[in-house]
Amino acid sequence: MPSYRAPLRDHRFVLNELLNVQQYNNIEGFSEATPDIIDAVLEEGGKFCENVLYPLNKVGDRQGCKLKSDGEVEVPEGFADAYTQFTEGGWTAISGDPKYGGQGLPEYVGLAMGEMITSSNMAFGMYPGLTGGAARALHAGGTDEQKELYLPKMITGEWSGTMNLTEPHCGTDLGMLRTKAVPNGDGSYAITGQKIWISAGEHPMSKNIVHLVLARIEGAPEGVKGISLFVVPKFLPDENGEPGERNDLQCGGLEEKMGIHGNATCVMNYDGAKGWLVGEEHKGLKIMFIMMNEARLGVGLQGMALAETAYQYSVDFARDRLQGRSLTGPKNPDGPADPIIVHPDVRRMLLDQKAFVEGARALTLWTALQGDLEQKHPEEEVREKAGDYMALLTPIIKSYLTEKGYESVSQGLQVHGGSGFTAEWGIEQTLRDARITLIYEGTNGIQALDLVGRKLAMKGMRPINTFFAELDAFVAENQGSGDLEPFVKGLAETKAKLQKATSWLVEKGLENFDNAGAASSEYLNLFGLTCFAYMWAKMAKVSLAKLEEGSSDPIYESKMKTGRYFLARWLPQADMHLARIEAGAEPLMALEAEAF
Amino acid sequence: MPSYRAPLRDHRFVLNELLNVQQYNNIEGFSEATPDIIDAVLEEGGKFCENVLYPLNKVGDRQGCKLKSDGEVEVPEGFADAYTQFTEGGWTAISGDPKYGGQGLPEYVGLAMGEMITSSNMAFGMYPGLTGGAARALHAGGTDEQKELYLPKMITGEWSGTMNLTEPHCGTDLGMLRTKAVPNGDGSYAITGQKIWISAGEHPMSKNIVHLVLARIEGAPEGVKGISLFVVPKFLPDENGEPGERNDLQCGGLEEKMGIHGNATCVMNYDGAKGWLVGEEHKGLKIMFIMMNEARLGVGLQGMALAETAYQYSVDFARDRLQGRSLTGPKNPDGPADPIIVHPDVRRMLLDQKAFVEGARALTLWTALQGDLEQKHPEEEVREKAGDYMALLTPIIKSYLTEKGYESVSQGLQVHGGSGFTAEWGIEQTLRDARITLIYEGTNGIQALDLVGRKLAMKGMRPINTFFAELDAFVAENQGSGDLEPFVKGLAETKAKLQKATSWLVEKGLENFDNAGAASSEYLNLFGLTCFAYMWAKMAKVSLAKLEEGSSDPIYESKMKTGRYFLARWLPQADMHLARIEAGAEPLMALEAEAF
Repeated sequence: MPSYRAPLRDHRFVLNELLNVQQYNNIEGFSEATPDIIDAVLEEGGKFCENVLYPLNKVGDRQGCKLKSDGEVEVPEGFADAYTQFTEGGWTAISGDPKYGGQGLPEYVGLAMGEMITSSNMAFGMYPGLTGGAARALHAGGTDEQKELYLPKMITGEWSGTMNLTEPHCGTDLGMLRTKAVPNGDGSYAITGQKIWISAGEHPMSKNIVHLVLARIEGAPEGVKGISLFVVPKFLPDENGEPGERNDLQCGGLEEKMGIHGNATCVMNYDGAKGWLVGEEHKGLKIMFIMMNEARLGVGLQGMALAETAYQYSVDFARDRLQGRSLTGPKNPDGPADPIIVHPDVRRMLLDQKAFVEGARALTLWTALQGDLEQKHPEEEVREKAGDYMALLTPIIKSYLTEKGYESVSQGLQVHGGSGFTAEWGIEQTLRDARITLIYEGTNGIQALDLVGRKLAMKGMRPINTFFAELDAFVAENQGSGDLEPFVKGLAETKAKLQKATSWLVEKGLENFDNAGAASSEYLNLFGLTCFAYMWAKMAKVSLAKLEEGSSDPIYESKMKTGRYFLARWLPQADMHLARIEAGAEPLMALEAEAF
Repeated sequence: MPSYRAPLRDHRFVLNELLNVQQYNNIEGFSEATPDIIDAVLEEGGKFCENVLYPLNKVGDRQGCKLKSDGEVEVPEGFADAYTQFTEGGWTAISGDPKYGGQGLPEYVGLAMGEMITSSNMAFGMYPGLTGGAARALHAGGTDEQKELYLPKMITGEWSGTMNLTEPHCGTDLGMLRTKAVPNGDGSYAITGQKIWISAGEHPMSKNIVHLVLARIEGAPEGVKGISLFVVPKFLPDENGEPGERNDLQCGGLEEKMGIHGNATCVMNYDGAKGWLVGEEHKGLKIMFIMMNEARLGVGLQGMALAETAYQYSVDFARDRLQGRSLTGPKNPDGPADPIIVHPDVRRMLLDQKAFVEGARALTLWTALQGDLEQKHPEEEVREKAGDYMALLTPIIKSYLTEKGYESVSQGLQVHGGSGFTAEWGIEQTLRDARITLIYEGTNGIQALDLVGRKLAMKGMRPINTFFAELDAFVAENQGSGDLEPFVKGLAETKAKLQKATSWLVEKGLENFDNAGAASSEYLNLFGLTCFAYMWAKMAKVSLAKLEEGSSDPIYESKMKTGRYFLARWLPQADMHLARIEAGAEPLMALEAEAF
């Protein structure tokens, strides 16, 4: 039967050995994040995920959420208890601002914990996850008064949060948004409209729900330049900051969906609900995008986290399931058959997953570290570079990690044969849950457009040029060195293809914007592949150094062998992406819309 | 809201224009299959699928099947009525042997109808689908008495059928099968054992259910050489051949699964049930594989059929959904936004689906025609070649069409954005239903092993050499001819890569069987891609000829443009497959099982 084990050894490998996060312990707040502390936090967190959240994962899927006649939402059995334990354990506060009650640990610790929460129970993890995002938006754009009122309660999880963007007729294109805000004359606004697909929009687990809602103030300019952000609590805070009068907003329905059944995806109806402006009038999108960018990294993380779960399930299955014999003679001669892990084609599926998960973990934690550096490093130059990387990598992490993560989960299901299609073995739920990650927080296609249409060109192409220079420096430093050589060569070649694609994009994309659109998804995938080539080269370098020191920890040999699989089986995708990019827009645009 | 329309124009294109099936009207039974007759059958069938089966598709998914306390199974509302209409309409009998009441139409007509049945309601279609497979096995291996008793009732659908292979501890490795058969002394056997994942194993829609069961006769040799096939009816036929006494077999449970909820996937318990040997003792697998091979083509067809449904859903959605503006200026200036079909990245997803579905339809109908020729052509040479092709292409159709079909459905879902994840829009069901096709009737990995381990080498490599010669001849005949040229060149280059991979396999696979195993899935995909390149080149040739004749039917321009998309975007996969194949087994086998 399936089980989940917190991958603590790999977290330690990435944080301590690959990223050597201790080099930054001069940064404010980081000095407390010693390896011992991080270890203790993640170990404790891993146990919580294994023992409390994971056992509720299937329950959540099977029971789902129910809308009751009074408009309240029932969550699956055990979720409310787990939520209480989760908040009491302080898990909502790990990387929160200490000024408002957070523990101030680096983001990368929060991210490592976030991975385990998602791996063990994604639908549950979205409740505190959305709260974290909403709190960050308030932190970035709220007044001091708003921050003092909301943040302490959100950081402890006593109150939860949501983000309200989508309406039935507008998702990607927020310019068409219709929800309106009318000044009440007392500094508050009356918010009226319908929002859909609001994750964690209504549930009984927190004492209040803080909705962040995009709306248009009466008389505002049309399009995206007339959108403001409001904080609209379910219960209006009284003079003591405690939940008071019920606000005029309701959950109007729950979405029936393919997966994440344990999370309440709500239609939210605002009927003159009282709300307060966050940030400036008509500039709500700017703040919402702070939240969205964090959320996009979180979704990329989900893609990786579910692939970890699927990997564990399928390795366990492949070790236990006896069926057939190895092509090169019995490996389990005393048993009725060999475990299916002896078969090259089964190993292909397992190694594909392993190469993905470990590459993705390195990439997300590296990116999370950039986030920390951007916020907190004392040197402006470091902050700027980290900020550039965050901007550049966000669409790649969101899209590449969810697309490849979903494929990875599907490989894991395939390892199970017929069992994979049955509810009993759990992995079909993982696949259904994973499918949303390619869609929400901006579809993967939108991420690709963000990359080619905005991120490439920003600041005179400084971010991508800085990134290329970093890769070139790594290649120059490490060339011709024995077992590392194929990794360096693989990275150099893949980067050269990405650079070629970048030049093509700059030239042909300006000639005809449809060329950029036609190339966007392939370009993003080539970029993601290059990031993985870099991570695997760095992981190989660290591992080889440990092996040369004589370490007998099996992780280093495992990294080398998995990395070699990555070189042999993943890098051949680069030419395919490049060829598709260079084919241009014509093959995509030639067919008339009516002829489809 | 989603809808399904029978793709009759494309069926006509493939049957009449591409395959020119009329050239075979001298074959027994084919003379009746004039274009008019085929048209009338498919048009009527298409209406049935659109109007009767499709409306029950979502009902079937939502309600699923229920096991009642008396061991009977309840099917979704409307299924029983639809089954009656289906049998009364003669849809079970299209390509059945006229000797037993079938209409004797060519298999390719049955296949075209089968596509529409699956597109509109896969879970329903499996009930008659399994009956067809079981009838074919009895037709191939049964005594005259058995055929006379069972076939007429199965061909009319009055009785349905199943195939019983899998047991809890054995699926792929049938050698471990434990279900036993003990002679009763009267020519019948007592069958005892448990079978799992029996599609359509129990339901109230037919008057009897004819189970074909693999079992081991007491004292039989171990392994696959001791397996026999039995016919085990739910109700024992009385002296008039009508359902009599209830046999000792029960549905012991229904599987909860990811999709195809409308089909009853049963645990079947045989408790000394009365059965009769089909074919010779210990040679049951041979007959079962006749059935399995047909079933594998059927599963490949399912992969294509669901991709057709998803394609239709996503084209409709992309035409209707207004969101954002074209990168090259508004295309719907009077509306609030442009339909999303204007975006290159949306077109990429639609064209990927279109290129797949049309290529797959051509390939399956071409293969079905080979099946007809193998069975019925008067010349031995034609029969032999067709038989070679059937053997060679079966694993490719099963595996390539389901893998790419599933990816295609997932593209279709992605076009829907958030709507795609909700039950309301239907496509999430299509994706869940499609996932099983990569697994059942032998997982796709098993198909790949069948291809490289058996089909390549058979008859001194005659099938693949014949196939290569056919491609070479096409290339030689059509070289250097204007608009056809890129198609011919694409085919020639892809075929050259497949040939290179084949040589590698023959050499390195014999050196080390793990090399063959490691290459198998990539080799199968490269083979599938080559088949598609051939089909698209042939479709382009036919279309160009019609355009030169001055035809204004838009289908020919559409074929050319879709074909060019295929060349630009699909063929670049060939090098990737070849590089992975040539990487050999080492990267897959190096890691110790414990290190995963």
